[in-house]
Amino acid sequence: MRPPEQELENLGDPETSPLRNSGSYSATHLGPSEEWRKQRGVGSPYLFIQMNELLGSPENQEWRETGRWILFEEKLDLEAKHWSSPHVPTLSLSSIWELRALLTTGLVLLDCSVQSLSELTEQVSRLESLNPEGRERLKSVLLQRPQHHIQPMCWSAVRRLGTRLCRGGHPTETLSSAVEPHLKDQLQSPLWQKLPPGTEAAAVLVGELDFLTQRLGVFVHFLEPVVLGTLTEVPLPMRFVCIILGPPALDKGYHEMGRAAAVLLSDPVFRWSACQASSPQDLLSAMDAFLEKVVVLPPGGVDLTERIPPPKCLSNVHKRLPSQLQESKDSCNGNISSKRDRYGYEHEPQPTSKELQRTGRLFGGLVQDIRRKAPWYLSDFLDALDAQSFSAILYIYLATIANAITFGGLLGDATDNTQGVLESFLGTAVAGSIFCLFAGQPLTILSSTGPVLVFERILFAFSRDHGLDYLPFRLWVGIWVAVFCLVLVATEASVLVRYFTRFTEEGFCALISLIFIYDAIGKMLSLAEVYPIYRPGLSGDTGSTPYGCLCYFRDTKGNISLWKGKSSEAKDAALGMDLGLANVSLLSPPECALQGGQSRGLGCHFVPDIAFFSLILFFATFLCATILKHFKSSHFFPSRVRKVISDFSMVLAILLGCGLDASLGLSTPKLIVPSEFKPTHPDRKWLVPLFGTNPWWLCLATALPALLMSILVFMDQQITAVILNRKEYQLQKGAGFHLDLFWVAMLMLLTSAFGLPWYVSTTVISLAHMDSLRRESATCAPGELPRFLGIREQRLTGLVVFILTGASIFLAPGLKFIPMPVLYGTFFYMGIAALSSTQFSERMKLLLMPAKHQPDLLFLRHVRLSRIHLFTTVQLVCLGLLWAVKSTAAAIVFPLMLLGLVGIRKALEWVFSPQELSWLDDPVPEENAKKVQQEKSELIHQLRTPEINISVN
Amino acid sequence: MRPPEQELENLGDPETSPLRNSGSYSATHLGPSEEWRKQRGVGSPYLFIQMNELLGSPENQEWRETGRWILFEEKLDLEAKHWSSPHVPTLSLSSIWELRALLTTGLVLLDCSVQSLSELTEQVSRLESLNPEGRERLKSVLLQRPQHHIQPMCWSAVRRLGTRLCRGGHPTETLSSAVEPHLKDQLQSPLWQKLPPGTEAAAVLVGELDFLTQRLGVFVHFLEPVVLGTLTEVPLPMRFVCIILGPPALDKGYHEMGRAAAVLLSDPVFRWSACQASSPQDLLSAMDAFLEKVVVLPPGGVDLTERIPPPKCLSNVHKRLPSQLQESKDSCNGNISSKRDRYGYEHEPQPTSKELQRTGRLFGGLVQDIRRKAPWYLSDFLDALDAQSFSAILYIYLATIANAITFGGLLGDATDNTQGVLESFLGTAVAGSIFCLFAGQPLTILSSTGPVLVFERILFAFSRDHGLDYLPFRLWVGIWVAVFCLVLVATEASVLVRYFTRFTEEGFCALISLIFIYDAIGKMLSLAEVYPIYRPGLSGDTGSTPYGCLCYFRDTKGNISLWKGKSSEAKDAALGMDLGLANVSLLSPPECALQGGQSRGLGCHFVPDIAFFSLILFFATFLCATILKHFKSSHFFPSRVRKVISDFSMVLAILLGCGLDASLGLSTPKLIVPSEFKPTHPDRKWLVPLFGTNPWWLCLATALPALLMSILVFMDQQITAVILNRKEYQLQKGAGFHLDLFWVAMLMLLTSAFGLPWYVSTTVISLAHMDSLRRESATCAPGELPRFLGIREQRLTGLVVFILTGASIFLAPGLKFIPMPVLYGTFFYMGIAALSSTQFSERMKLLLMPAKHQPDLLFLRHVRLSRIHLFTTVQLVCLGLLWAVKSTAAAIVFPLMLLGLVGIRKALEWVFSPQELSWLDDPVPEENAKKVQQEKSELIHQLRTPEINISVN
Repeated sequence: MRPPEQELENLGDPETSPLRNSGSYSATHLGPSEEWRKQRGVGSPYLFIQMNELLGSPENQEWRETGRWILFEEKLDLEAKHWSSPHVPTLSLSSIWELRALLTTGLVLLDCSVQSLSELTEQVSRLESLNPEGRERLKSVLLQRPQHHIQPMCWSAVRRLGTRLCRGGHPTETLSSAVEPHLKDQLQSPLWQKLPPGTEAAAVLVGELDFLTQRLGVFVHFLEPVVLGTLTEVPLPMRFVCIILGPPALDKGYHEMGRAAAVLLSDPVFRWSACQASSPQDLLSAMDAFLEKVVVLPPGGVDLTERIPPPKCLSNVHKRLPSQLQESKDSCNGNISSKRDRYGYEHEPQPTSKELQRTGRLFGGLVQDIRRKAPWYLSDFLDALDAQSFSAILYIYLATIANAITFGGLLGDATDNTQGVLESFLGTAVAGSIFCLFAGQPLTILSSTGPVLVFERILFAFSRDHGLDYLPFRLWVGIWVAVFCLVLVATEASVLVRYFTRFTEEGFCALISLIFIYDAIGKMLSLAEVYPIYRPGLSGDTGSTPYGCLCYFRDTKGNISLWKGKSSEAKDAALGMDLGLANVSLLSPPECALQGGQSRGLGCHFVPDIAFFSLILFFATFLCATILKHFKSSHFFPSRVRKVISDFSMVLAILLGCGLDASLGLSTPKLIVPSEFKPTHPDRKWLVPLFGTNPWWLCLATALPALLMSILVFMDQQITAVILNRKEYQLQKGAGFHLDLFWVAMLMLLTSAFGLPWYVSTTVISLAHMDSLRRESATCAPGELPRFLGIREQRLTGLVVFILTGASIFLAPGLKFIPMPVLYGTFFYMGIAALSSTQFSERMKLLLMPAKHQPDLLFLRHVRLSRIHLFTTVQLVCLGLLWAVKSTAAAIVFPLMLLGLVGIRKALEWVFSPQELSWLDDPVPEENAKKVQQEKSELIHQLRTPEINISVN
Repeated sequence: MRPPEQELENLGDPETSPLRNSGSYSATHLGPSEEWRKQRGVGSPYLFIQMNELLGSPENQEWRETGRWILFEEKLDLEAKHWSSPHVPTLSLSSIWELRALLTTGLVLLDCSVQSLSELTEQVSRLESLNPEGRERLKSVLLQRPQHHIQPMCWSAVRRLGTRLCRGGHPTETLSSAVEPHLKDQLQSPLWQKLPPGTEAAAVLVGELDFLTQRLGVFVHFLEPVVLGTLTEVPLPMRFVCIILGPPALDKGYHEMGRAAAVLLSDPVFRWSACQASSPQDLLSAMDAFLEKVVVLPPGGVDLTERIPPPKCLSNVHKRLPSQLQESKDSCNGNISSKRDRYGYEHEPQPTSKELQRTGRLFGGLVQDIRRKAPWYLSDFLDALDAQSFSAILYIYLATIANAITFGGLLGDATDNTQGVLESFLGTAVAGSIFCLFAGQPLTILSSTGPVLVFERILFAFSRDHGLDYLPFRLWVGIWVAVFCLVLVATEASVLVRYFTRFTEEGFCALISLIFIYDAIGKMLSLAEVYPIYRPGLSGDTGSTPYGCLCYFRDTKGNISLWKGKSSEAKDAALGMDLGLANVSLLSPPECALQGGQSRGLGCHFVPDIAFFSLILFFATFLCATILKHFKSSHFFPSRVRKVISDFSMVLAILLGCGLDASLGLSTPKLIVPSEFKPTHPDRKWLVPLFGTNPWWLCLATALPALLMSILVFMDQQITAVILNRKEYQLQKGAGFHLDLFWVAMLMLLTSAFGLPWYVSTTVISLAHMDSLRRESATCAPGELPRFLGIREQRLTGLVVFILTGASIFLAPGLKFIPMPVLYGTFFYMGIAALSSTQFSERMKLLLMPAKHQPDLLFLRHVRLSRIHLFTTVQLVCLGLLWAVKSTAAAIVFPLMLLGLVGIRKALEWVFSPQELSWLDDPVPEENAKKVQQEKSELIHQLRTPEINISVN
């Protein structure tokens, strides 16, 4: 809703440039005018450079486009008739030197003000030591129309072109002078559709002319850019022209010199210097300055047959620009899915958020959060009004639904259907909507998550073992948790999140992932118990035999059967030698029931094939989700299609599993969903009674498990909050740690009272939510990567998602077709994906890798391998301890052990140096932190691996 | 068994160097002497360069090793205390210029002959404009012992060191002078274990000294290499020393100059020039020559935070050496697993082998083959005497066994066990041994292959449909095939293989692969029919109900049961209301049989779970084989372990499948193996009767199918032969196309007479055989890739493999535990692997890829995308036609259609230009071929994808 800014985004995004930040340039009121560009001093951020070469036989030469440059080189593969992929140009030093020598003696026209190509041609040919005939021939050659290689344009581009011309994006004065018959060709270049208005062009003309006796070098800089006919494939105003002609030569010297000139012009610093140059000497100095900065590889250092792909970060170039011209071109800046900062600058430790400073007053943090967020409240809705929000809503809605089904199903499984999928849908809708409306960080998505599910299972097992009424018991736990959380809010405990380093996060994540994996496998094994596999070798074991089921009918006397044998006991008879039955048939149990009989026998409940088919469903779902998730990085189909498939991998995997199951029609165990809108458990009402059959003192005793649960909720909620509010996401509206926790406490009350699942923020969907709302610059130049501009911070997308989830409750009956093995498969997938996304798992892999084959990770460069292994081992031991505690009767205290991780991490500071911890762990520094001295000796600060990352909860 | 050569292999492999080939250097009688090195002119192929820097506080400076170079740079990551991976150094131009300037004014000692470090120090400090105190301080600094970073040596290295010292590999005169107390440290460097004797060293000393007032540059070249104490981490004789010292400076100037010096020295051309230099000016010229050849990238062209991995090919460097010094260092040369020639030279079309020239005489080719191969016969056995042969035998033996089991099992399956696994073992052993003893190309491994299996299945179906006696029918086909093949040998038809281009090969391969895949899936589906899945929805269909099986016992009268109902028919009774049985029980069929009863009822033959479990076995085998095959390219475990796992992927997959099956003990269908040494089919003898029950005229009629079969055998055999005799494998002993075909014909007679499977050469195992026998140079420098030296051509490994196979017949009874779904899984894997290894499948993938995401393949650079797609489409259509023919009643003529591919390929020459075909197809040029004019304009000839490649048959 801020049109002036919107427009400027197309102009190289000045709003994020330091120019704006330094106050010297006010972005909001300047259109794409000449004035704006002049203020930038360099003309435009982009220069399109085209090289035309004279090709063909000497009698029949013509100008052919053979290469082009914006940020990178694209070569025209003449035989294959298409542009190469953008790549980093490799030059030889001699070609630059030759060019320099040529321009030293050649013609350098600076601040030239010719108006047409013929005028320029006149100037070029007049000044040279040529005989009149040669002059004319040179002129005619230069005026010859070049052949551009223009690839067919697709229809969408045509449409965009239409809109663009209507918008009048291009300065009309230059356009109008360019309206020539061949303009249509030029306008068809797909490149022209992408280049921002204000882009200028340069032409490099290279060729061998047999009437020349010596080399001819011309360099022209136009004071005002001018359209020179069809010199370039796109109708852009020309800023530079470079002409390199000479007598026929054997080597590829001219071609290479032309490339050198083009590469020089593609360097923004050289360009800037060339614009400022007032004498040929200045130009040569600019070339020398360029040479100072080039990267030299020894002969054979690169395989010249391979084209070097563009580097992931361009910042090195722009660092060299005079400071007032530096644009924040760092395309790696704020890469949302990773913590990398690939530009070679000092790695600043994460500063303590303002939000995490203690006020010292009771509820001081909460009040401050509300004060900070209130002014944004209106914009929290207005900022959502963008088409991007729709796709974000669809994506997050499907992710939320998938989550609600899986966790709802598993919760039902774990609690004997005291809660279930219906509760999960309802709870998600209600809790999520409320949270989105009032929370401090509305970008986080509420969900019933793994850790809470684990704890709930422990609680249920406990209550069952002690004969308690579960829901009232749970209600009191919820009440106490809410109370404890409010205490945490009141005491501003959230400032403690600074102790949640990567060590804690990963320990937490790894334990939960392992529980996921263990549970999924356990569930599958228990399926094999319920649906036993028939093994002929063990057929004496009648429990697993498929034989022995008879359908009994009442005889005329109404007795169910007529035993003629001596034993009247079914089991003995079944194995006996003499059955002697009457009124008995071999009908299958369902048919038997239809015909009024009764199936009896040990084989009656045997359902074959289910165990293996469930296994197939399980692995099919897991593999499908995994493969589709990684489909994004394949090369098939346009990236948009790939992204959709990858984003919806989980939904697609569930659908595949259901389809597979439905197609065979086997009686696999299915999700239990009530047929109408009522609690899953038939014996309960929505509102949970305060005591039920429980003794009154239980309401006090529940404080103990609630204390543990509070730790869990606090950690789960705040780890997500810390991750989401990281500096690299450049959130403008600030976080609200205290406010978030307050609402989590309130919702805890609500969900406990109605027997709905418990909710906290979930890392993965929240990150996915942010990712789907990221604003990026449009890319113009081939090979350029889009820049990150920030997140569309608002409440609306989340709110709509949860309203839609609420509406989907009416779809719930359809869910009863989902087989449980499919849900276990997604559960397994979540565990594996979450575990493998941690740096911890990366370091575990290092344990198995010979040093020679290890990837060139940054922390490997800075920390001794033995120290890395030690750190990994400590984590492994911690994990083992956690697992041991979790597996014993003391399972209920496992949140306490998770908290213990924080202590262990603190203790590690005696073992590891701050330097080492800064690489292996990722500490949020303390308020008056002694700044850890980062090594600055070289440009080394890229590759910190992404943290918690996609996929748990 | 040629020790002198063995020794020389450690010396940079002079035997393959052009020096040797040109006759100027006789390799076999020269030891690693000075003489040898002098003759080479450069000293040694390897120079170890170490940079020592003065680090620490000014009061407490010490020399520390910070970098080293041989071919690439290794940087010491000081914090992590380990060497970086070898990478291509990046320099700035200014550091080279500064170095050049320093050496212009500095001290250049050429052909210096000092004998110790103190002597050198004396020279260096004397010549400088220093005050006496400064001189002394400089001397003491230079004499200080440097700190090397030596990583702990593993035990195997210690052992190797022991052997090495005993061998006296290092010239003793240099060693003895180097025996200093610190030598032990130096000898522990793992690098020292790898560097070949004769390697020399260079030291670059860099530092800031506060008592210096101006920069000090020294370059020393020693006439005779000399051991200078512990200047380097390895005790090598020193050839160059470069000292760069100066007053403290702010930037990293000295460090970068030192790196520049080291990189210069690591360039063999510069080194050569420096050795030849007689004046400082010569040295500067050498630097200028180096600068001429460096590769320049624009600023920001590479991300300097990332280390550039070594290129796959080093040849560019060595091309620049004066021609008499050029070594065949092209590490990509003869890369056996691919056809890439990455060095930038002209791509020579495959020359017509001498073996394929027509003599014009009857059996002329055969006679010539025998004449050519006879002189090698003795060496064919002696050349095998190498430890490498053992691993080759183990590898190929396991591959052969796996193949014999799979194809034997499938053949049994296809021919109602007329032949089977036992025949497959026996036939493989006999046919393989004979072929290895007498064939023209003993490196090829005989096997019953896919195409022949397909044809045999067709033959069997035909004979069954027409009520023929299969084996006698097959015998006559075999006789005729042998006759036709002899005719082909007599007429020298093998010269026609030149028309077998990639188009034909890939069509052949793709069709067979598709048949594999189709058959594997078909077999699995037919399993599901034999072992039906019980679906409750369809339970009325009694065929699939698991219920209804009773065990009947004889009553006292001996009658089998006492029917009291009205109907005596089992089916009606089973569904009837009144069974009224006596002497009946519900025992399972096996138990019933044990107790003397008889199981009756429709449910008796129902075996649950088999269908799904078979499916699980099938996919588990397939996935396991696929994953293990690709394990080679992972980063875990040492490469040797990875290679073993990858090589034995198929065997491991079969073992996994069997283990899985055995652990559950289900009654899956198993391989049928006779319990003793007799034909699989119980009704036949080993020798097949000439006519059996067939009419006499059939011996004439079989000529027709035999004709088709001959085409198939000829194509299958010769395509393999062409692939194996390709030029890039550098076979020395020549091929024997005619001789090979002759023996195939003979073996055809033999195997037909005994009812064994038919055999031809198989591409994949033969290639694997060659690969396991490749000789490679040992690598010395970090980052260096081993060079291909040729194949160990001999007959012994193959022979031993087949003898072992013969001995394994006694293991055959153990094979009855192999479940058929596992075999189908390997079959499926073979099909998928073979299909995906073709360029055809690569081009099919291109159809789905947006141009932007396509890999930078060479043919994409040279052929228009639309033309590539057209070519792919033609192949697809051909394949469709072949499939259609194969699926109709005319299946038997499919060999004819395969031959038709050759015609279609010929016709394509009207549609595609020779240029295009040279990129897309891979024609073997005709005798007087007009040489296809390859584009030479740039260095572009790498990436031709591998051809048929690993995995079919």
